[in-house]
Amino acid sequence: MKYPEPLDVTVYPRQYGIATFMRLPHITHLKELDVAILGIPFDTSLGYRVGTRMGPREIRACSASVRLYNSALKVNPFKKHRIADYGDLLVDPYSIEKTYELIESGIDKLMENNVIPVSVGGDHGITYPILKSIAKKHGPVALVVIDAHPDTHDTQFGHKLTHAGPWRRAIEQKALIPHKVIEIGIRGTLFSEEDLAYGEKQGFRVWTAEEFMSENIEKVKAEIHQIVGDTKCYFSLDIDGLDLSTAPGTGAPEIGGLSNLHALQVIRSLVGLNLVGADIVEVSPPLDTGNVTSLLASHLLYEMICVI
Amino acid sequence: MKYPEPLDVTVYPRQYGIATFMRLPHITHLKELDVAILGIPFDTSLGYRVGTRMGPREIRACSASVRLYNSALKVNPFKKHRIADYGDLLVDPYSIEKTYELIESGIDKLMENNVIPVSVGGDHGITYPILKSIAKKHGPVALVVIDAHPDTHDTQFGHKLTHAGPWRRAIEQKALIPHKVIEIGIRGTLFSEEDLAYGEKQGFRVWTAEEFMSENIEKVKAEIHQIVGDTKCYFSLDIDGLDLSTAPGTGAPEIGGLSNLHALQVIRSLVGLNLVGADIVEVSPPLDTGNVTSLLASHLLYEMICVI
Amino acid sequence: MKYPEPLDVTVYPRQYGIATFMRLPHITHLKELDVAILGIPFDTSLGYRVGTRMGPREIRACSASVRLYNSALKVNPFKKHRIADYGDLLVDPYSIEKTYELIESGIDKLMENNVIPVSVGGDHGITYPILKSIAKKHGPVALVVIDAHPDTHDTQFGHKLTHAGPWRRAIEQKALIPHKVIEIGIRGTLFSEEDLAYGEKQGFRVWTAEEFMSENIEKVKAEIHQIVGDTKCYFSLDIDGLDLSTAPGTGAPEIGGLSNLHALQVIRSLVGLNLVGADIVEVSPPLDTGNVTSLLASHLLYEMICVI
Amino acid sequence: MKYPEPLDVTVYPRQYGIATFMRLPHITHLKELDVAILGIPFDTSLGYRVGTRMGPREIRACSASVRLYNSALKVNPFKKHRIADYGDLLVDPYSIEKTYELIESGIDKLMENNVIPVSVGGDHGITYPILKSIAKKHGPVALVVIDAHPDTHDTQFGHKLTHAGPWRRAIEQKALIPHKVIEIGIRGTLFSEEDLAYGEKQGFRVWTAEEFMSENIEKVKAEIHQIVGDTKCYFSLDIDGLDLSTAPGTGAPEIGGLSNLHALQVIRSLVGLNLVGADIVEVSPPLDTGNVTSLLASHLLYEMICVI
Amino acid sequence: MKYPEPLDVTVYPRQYGIATFMRLPHITHLKELDVAILGIPFDTSLGYRVGTRMGPREIRACSASVRLYNSALKVNPFKKHRIADYGDLLVDPYSIEKTYELIESGIDKLMENNVIPVSVGGDHGITYPILKSIAKKHGPVALVVIDAHPDTHDTQFGHKLTHAGPWRRAIEQKALIPHKVIEIGIRGTLFSEEDLAYGEKQGFRVWTAEEFMSENIEKVKAEIHQIVGDTKCYFSLDIDGLDLSTAPGTGAPEIGGLSNLHALQVIRSLVGLNLVGADIVEVSPPLDTGNVTSLLASHLLYEMICVI
Amino acid sequence: MKYPEPLDVTVYPRQYGIATFMRLPHITHLKELDVAILGIPFDTSLGYRVGTRMGPREIRACSASVRLYNSALKVNPFKKHRIADYGDLLVDPYSIEKTYELIESGIDKLMENNVIPVSVGGDHGITYPILKSIAKKHGPVALVVIDAHPDTHDTQFGHKLTHAGPWRRAIEQKALIPHKVIEIGIRGTLFSEEDLAYGEKQGFRVWTAEEFMSENIEKVKAEIHQIVGDTKCYFSLDIDGLDLSTAPGTGAPEIGGLSNLHALQVIRSLVGLNLVGADIVEVSPPLDTGNVTSLLASHLLYEMICVI
Repeated sequence: MKYPEPLDVTVYPRQYGIATFMRLPHITHLKELDVAILGIPFDTSLGYRVGTRMGPREIRACSASVRLYNSALKVNPFKKHRIADYGDLLVDPYSIEKTYELIESGIDKLMENNVIPVSVGGDHGITYPILKSIAKKHGPVALVVIDAHPDTHDTQFGHKLTHAGPWRRAIEQKALIPHKVIEIGIRGTLFSEEDLAYGEKQGFRVWTAEEFMSENIEKVKAEIHQIVGDTKCYFSLDIDGLDLSTAPGTGAPEIGGLSNLHALQVIRSLVGLNLVGADIVEVSPPLDTGNVTSLLASHLLYEMICVI
Repeated sequence: MKYPEPLDVTVYPRQYGIATFMRLPHITHLKELDVAILGIPFDTSLGYRVGTRMGPREIRACSASVRLYNSALKVNPFKKHRIADYGDLLVDPYSIEKTYELIESGIDKLMENNVIPVSVGGDHGITYPILKSIAKKHGPVALVVIDAHPDTHDTQFGHKLTHAGPWRRAIEQKALIPHKVIEIGIRGTLFSEEDLAYGEKQGFRVWTAEEFMSENIEKVKAEIHQIVGDTKCYFSLDIDGLDLSTAPGTGAPEIGGLSNLHALQVIRSLVGLNLVGADIVEVSPPLDTGNVTSLLASHLLYEMICVI
Repeated sequence: MKYPEPLDVTVYPRQYGIATFMRLPHITHLKELDVAILGIPFDTSLGYRVGTRMGPREIRACSASVRLYNSALKVNPFKKHRIADYGDLLVDPYSIEKTYELIESGIDKLMENNVIPVSVGGDHGITYPILKSIAKKHGPVALVVIDAHPDTHDTQFGHKLTHAGPWRRAIEQKALIPHKVIEIGIRGTLFSEEDLAYGEKQGFRVWTAEEFMSENIEKVKAEIHQIVGDTKCYFSLDIDGLDLSTAPGTGAPEIGGLSNLHALQVIRSLVGLNLVGADIVEVSPPLDTGNVTSLLASHLLYEMICVI
Repeated sequence: MKYPEPLDVTVYPRQYGIATFMRLPHITHLKELDVAILGIPFDTSLGYRVGTRMGPREIRACSASVRLYNSALKVNPFKKHRIADYGDLLVDPYSIEKTYELIESGIDKLMENNVIPVSVGGDHGITYPILKSIAKKHGPVALVVIDAHPDTHDTQFGHKLTHAGPWRRAIEQKALIPHKVIEIGIRGTLFSEEDLAYGEKQGFRVWTAEEFMSENIEKVKAEIHQIVGDTKCYFSLDIDGLDLSTAPGTGAPEIGGLSNLHALQVIRSLVGLNLVGADIVEVSPPLDTGNVTSLLASHLLYEMICVI
Repeated sequence: MKYPEPLDVTVYPRQYGIATFMRLPHITHLKELDVAILGIPFDTSLGYRVGTRMGPREIRACSASVRLYNSALKVNPFKKHRIADYGDLLVDPYSIEKTYELIESGIDKLMENNVIPVSVGGDHGITYPILKSIAKKHGPVALVVIDAHPDTHDTQFGHKLTHAGPWRRAIEQKALIPHKVIEIGIRGTLFSEEDLAYGEKQGFRVWTAEEFMSENIEKVKAEIHQIVGDTKCYFSLDIDGLDLSTAPGTGAPEIGGLSNLHALQVIRSLVGLNLVGADIVEVSPPLDTGNVTSLLASHLLYEMICVI
Repeated sequence: MKYPEPLDVTVYPRQYGIATFMRLPHITHLKELDVAILGIPFDTSLGYRVGTRMGPREIRACSASVRLYNSALKVNPFKKHRIADYGDLLVDPYSIEKTYELIESGIDKLMENNVIPVSVGGDHGITYPILKSIAKKHGPVALVVIDAHPDTHDTQFGHKLTHAGPWRRAIEQKALIPHKVIEIGIRGTLFSEEDLAYGEKQGFRVWTAEEFMSENIEKVKAEIHQIVGDTKCYFSLDIDGLDLSTAPGTGAPEIGGLSNLHALQVIRSLVGLNLVGADIVEVSPPLDTGNVTSLLASHLLYEMICVI
């Protein structure tokens, strides 16, 4: 069993080489992998300020900045798992339905090979077909999500498959265990008071941004572990869970959100959970300024890999 | 019969007021209008670098810079026609089909009231439902279009309704007179040699960018007028007909294109044609730099109004 | 009594429509309103890095992102008050004196109709004529202000009417109750030690940024309520009260300032005060990057409306 | 007589040193100079999109890129005249009247010492007090100006001293010889047909942009020399005379304007005229993108110095 | 013999996939190639405004926009030659000498396998070691270069190996045939009149930008072919040969340069020459605005491939 | 003894004047100074994302925003010490070795005149020759450094003199007292676990960013004073010690770093130490967005001057 290695920075300066995630090898043979980092360049399920289809490419470019050893977690993930850039899943920019099928069948292949997907969106709608595929293998899973919005809308303009309702769809598909859904960072302006009602009824544990930020991280961590326990768990990071000031490159930024440090703390608190997949979504390079959001995302992506 | 007036710049400085097109009144009562400037904030029929859904709003903001008297054409269009900002047509960001129906029925209302539509996109796909509506009233029309791309693809990823094929769809619908389709600015890289074949077979008159730029504008003008004659004619300006250096804020920019002056010359050469509608499309503010493309578009929009 | 409604986001996607504040109707008939959101596109009373005259237009555009239900305060302000976009007050870009008269008489009309002004600047100088008008109706008022600078300069280059001295002018005009002036966020570099002396002598309550940030918000809130009591109160938010890192688009940014969350907390702490007006000033779109400051301002503007 | 020397680029790399114009010495002793490059950081006489007050500082920074030998004119101007960075003239950002007096008296000192002013604005209004001072020494002069706008408005919002009327004011003051005023680049949208009438009546020679661009430069040059002859002449370059695509960083950009090459050609055609001063105005760094307009201005400034 | 194929755009939308040049396969086995597109991410031989080390990565990303069929030359180069993305040559960011050796030995491998290098810089210094390697195989070659600067400096700060002197070094190494060196676009400000003397003495054919632009392209083409004849020829495109307005993202932009169309015309005029290599250099993404220069470069790169 | 004075802001508006640091006089006569602010525009010892050579020029421009009185420390430093802009130290952009010698000899002159250097980089490598020079006068010194990275690499690509190893080199040269080296802000991804080992072995006191941020500043301050005591001390601020969200304009930004307030608190905690020099490094204007990092740096530079 051989570990794919990122380009050695003592030999190949970081400006060198084709931009894969963290300058890892591009490997599509799933037998060689434990964890696949993959892009899903799709944002047609976004209703307003688009652009996240450009996310995977820009995050790949920015991830050349990431070094390999995590000083906080004291781990080099690339020596622990066989990890590579699996490339992108195929999408159809003109069809949400067809793309969600393509995503689901794309993830199915990973499931068959016991490879953990770490996906880079794309809009938040893509998590629904990922969860659908995961549930076929693992049954319904727990979910920890960082997000400004509840994402439990039933429909938008009459459409059932959008970036605004992945959790509702996934619950309907028995892909999630409702009372093991944990939302962190919810805040700000909502369409109406109904937005939160669905989650409450389903038994979600919701930390609004303000509650989370006034809480001790150790307490949050303990509660996450208590809720999730040994259940298989998925982690989803919508970049708008962070504050507008740190993640401007996204379609629906909100103020009063998590700082970069908060995001790091949440991710690191997942150590010990049984993670079966993760994603980072809603990074929109055309709306970004100075690439800060893509740079941030590439660092958070690395941290997510460290806790798997 | 009263002419709507843009805000008087000797009283209201240009930073003053809600951003309608050229600070015209916002009028939705069609009986009061000859020409309606309207936005169509839709880009789901775009396959790659999106963002033109933000076009109408930004072009409105930038159009506060435009003054009222056209020194080249010696005309103040707002004293010649009743012109106003009609607002936007309704769109469904998740459905091309439904939006094209909404556009068609939106334009139908203008047709019923003999109001000429001057539309601001949005991607180039929107011209197809506009032409469909126009043809219901006027029969098939002539077309003058500035564009880098032939826009006659049959399908993209199996979809018939995209930004890449409006002319083919319009011809199938008998909305255009094929041998009175005039394309100016075609150039650059194409998907294959087939891209130009359709137009040739249909009898399009195509000036590639390089041919156009080596030609005397008076000769071009004469030939346009000879081809179109008294036939009712539609004018469509895809901003990527202009060079990347002057119109960077668009999804598929190409080099070797028209200059701003060339675009002015083409528009001004339309004086005397029987124009039944016009549009400017593919301006993508998130891909722009320093708003130059939206500023450019707002000036070209004004010029288009001057030749109606 | 009918409540003006922002465009319904379930019907009209946010890219749709002419950019009024929060896509509210544009209403100039004051009998129909309780609260008027209005722009004051003026920055000639700014001495150094200008551009805030473009503030109202950009904040209108960005405010299309704001949703209607405030999950923290559990309120939809548009169902509580009759609120609309009143448009802009007239200004003369070449004359501070004349513009301040125009502002004062503009606000006078609101006062006559018992309409609460929520103004969007423009530089901080505009608050002086607003307060002058308010005091004619209500007598001298209390003031809560978020700002990096004391804004109590007597003159700049010999001029009495500038962005640097609104509170001094207002006190001279008996428009403010000096010992009910509360400044939050003062910090950084000042012209001299005299800058703070005026406020101290007048009895201002000043929380420097650092004091404020080391304080519990509940204690701050209690003290604000204790100082202001039932007195009519005006709220003014200079965006440079926030940190450079979150509000770069302003003329005189300072480091060590409030976070977005802090600003939210201050605004929300005003619930229960008798607010007779509010403003947000010093947002300069040309100095901004990626529109973050205008986006931030549009969210803070919404929050301000929620506490009236 | 010693020639001030720019920093020697073979010793001091261009990133080295405090940013004076072209890294020339900063000399305020007028006896040591033939030509003074000076900044006038003032834009309060601008009505709409401000920011040119930041012009001198940014153009200084960008001018470190300019090399010393002009290959087209075969001249190193710094070996021909004693040229230095004279610093900025004092301005009062809150008062047009006072600033114009400060400018006039500032230029008076140069006139007393027979130093030719090459000024960097600021808005176009500053040329009026410069011309007033020049005329006190030289009598009325000829004028060659590159500009998109006629700049002959009588008043704006009732004000006589603005960026829109310097030539009218200068003619009233007998600072210009009306029939020796040559305008190049006029175009685009004007407030009304009256805009051009003043110049026509006064006998201006106007090349609209389109006329100029269809003309042979040698013919233009001949006519300029024929009109101006031996008369003392001032040259003023409003950056908006150039096209929006090449000079986006300005308050009132227009399309269909001169290219960079055209501007070079006009400047170089001035060789042999008796130039008594020159300026470059309306460069607004906050409205610029990637500093292109300031870089352009720094090169044009250099060319202007070469033809004195 | 199999032709590597770029990703099929009818199946894989352009946002899909890891960013190689034109989404070609990444092939390092030289036996499979006729032409290798390769990056040289090095700019330590640049003296002032750096950043071109980021060129290859950004140009790869932008080249996803390029389509496959060249409508002007009526060719799909990927069906004519075996072309792929060879990756980057190794560089040492801290040593010019060592990097030039790495480049030379890197190109040597291509020479051994009869593969034509098309290199993407990096600063212009990299062309020297490329030519050295080419000359070892082919003997001294002819050179056509688009550039604003003569690039024949002997030393900079005492260093012989810099971006400012590749042609002088190459001539000393007998890698170039001096009287078959053709420079197009030279202009602007030079360090001194000596800058042009070297080339004159060596017998270079120099078209200054202004001469070139006033010439008929057919005449230029004829003279190029007459000078080069059947001699093996290298083509080098320094992006600053183009005008500042179209290529702002470069370290030493100059005004009065070639347009995008001019560059296309020069490249296309090379059809029929015996090209043994080509490069595009001096594109600096950190100095760019809206990626326009990288987009431009990716299109010019494609055109260069079409004429090999 | 006369104190150089920054331009008086009540007379000279901040847009006025050539951009020296804080608009101080440019003084090169060392007898007249206690503290010299100087630029070192050099980044060739940086391996990846360059651009800090442009730091001094941009920070000078931005520092016009800084006012003179520090309200937190209650001091106007320009009335306490004789401080001026000393200009830049000479550098050779093509040679690290030669430039480090130039820096060392440049600082030597200050040492001879008992002038304290406050340097503005440039990359972090420049601190090594500064320390070397300081140690010749003062012997080995203590060091307080804010940085994301340990900066104790032995070599990069075989080179001993780079931005990644100044402390190791300085310790080898006996310029630092190892157990009096205090690092604050270390975090994030490292090349390997070895990165921290060197400092541990040498006895550095390291506060990782997370440790620092969870600590009370008063405790940190006390420990700093206890470690340093009366020993002469150098302070170095690598801007990447701050979080990516507040300091994006740097080559190797990391998330989870200090806020602007944290940086202020650390600097202010140095009051009372015996500072013999300070610097601020790694600000890269071409990588910045909206100049926020340069504005931030200019404020931090001012604060550093206040604690000397």
